[in-house]
Amino acid sequence: MVFWKKFFTNSEVPSLDTVLSGDILELTNESGVKQQIYFSTEHDLDVYELEALCDSVGWARRPLRKVKKALEFSFLIVSMWEIRGNRKRMIGFARATSDHAFNATIWDVVVHPDFQSQGLGKALMRYTIRKLRSSDISNITLFADPQVIDFYRRLGFMLDPEGIKGMFWYPS
Amino acid sequence: MVFWKKFFTNSEVPSLDTVLSGDILELTNESGVKQQIYFSTEHDLDVYELEALCDSVGWARRPLRKVKKALEFSFLIVSMWEIRGNRKRMIGFARATSDHAFNATIWDVVVHPDFQSQGLGKALMRYTIRKLRSSDISNITLFADPQVIDFYRRLGFMLDPEGIKGMFWYPS
Repeated sequence: MVFWKKFFTNSEVPSLDTVLSGDILELTNESGVKQQIYFSTEHDLDVYELEALCDSVGWARRPLRKVKKALEFSFLIVSMWEIRGNRKRMIGFARATSDHAFNATIWDVVVHPDFQSQGLGKALMRYTIRKLRSSDISNITLFADPQVIDFYRRLGFMLDPEGIKGMFWYPS
Repeated sequence: MVFWKKFFTNSEVPSLDTVLSGDILELTNESGVKQQIYFSTEHDLDVYELEALCDSVGWARRPLRKVKKALEFSFLIVSMWEIRGNRKRMIGFARATSDHAFNATIWDVVVHPDFQSQGLGKALMRYTIRKLRSSDISNITLFADPQVIDFYRRLGFMLDPEGIKGMFWYPS
């Protein structure tokens, strides 16, 4: 069992929704160790640190030049950090492309293996959805690998609504 | 049967691929009437004309302010025009959001009913794919309504490759 607490008040355990109204969470694990988790929408990330995070979950390496460009031209960048004293470590990431008006598509959702199964992926996605909603984006889409379809479904994502299907074209 | 001809040479009937290396097509229909079809990637479109085109296929009206913003922030805008003398008419449209590096998602593909079933939707999509490929985008995605899944499949789009599924989140 993992407890979420507001950073500024230790007297209550608010719902995840409440916690996410701020950008800092305080997490107390079963051993009583407290962790501070911070969310940022800063675009100017260290691509080496980002790619190390992607490495940790086994993703294929990508040219850093293209990663930098993708960060620059994504509509929303969300990074999730563990704060310990004056050190921080990137433990999660998601980004979205968008037309800034109707549609957004979420890409590259990742949580470091050391921080999985603690509700942090859910927190990262809720934060991302909230940020997109606050920009008046109403159609939020993504492409889900088979093993995470249920994860996204629990967050309110629908599979093939009204028979609409995701399709992909790759160079042959 | 519809014949595609290069605008500048009437002596041959090149493949659609060849024709699309230029931005102007000449179409001769069964009645022998010639039509010039022009493709543009200009972002600065008349939103009233665009929304009239969307009306022609029965799409729901959208706030023009948001349509303008979506045009401004789409990575690629493709419009297809019928040229008659010195008049032009918008007969097709597609646009794509992108991170300018890895992924693009195609939205709002439309061909005016008067110009459907002549291969123009295919031409519009091939032109769109070619433009995205020339920007080094390798992962081209879209969300297809049930009735157009086979259309996109014939263009090389794959449904749920390796079990990857399109998912949607809407405000409740």
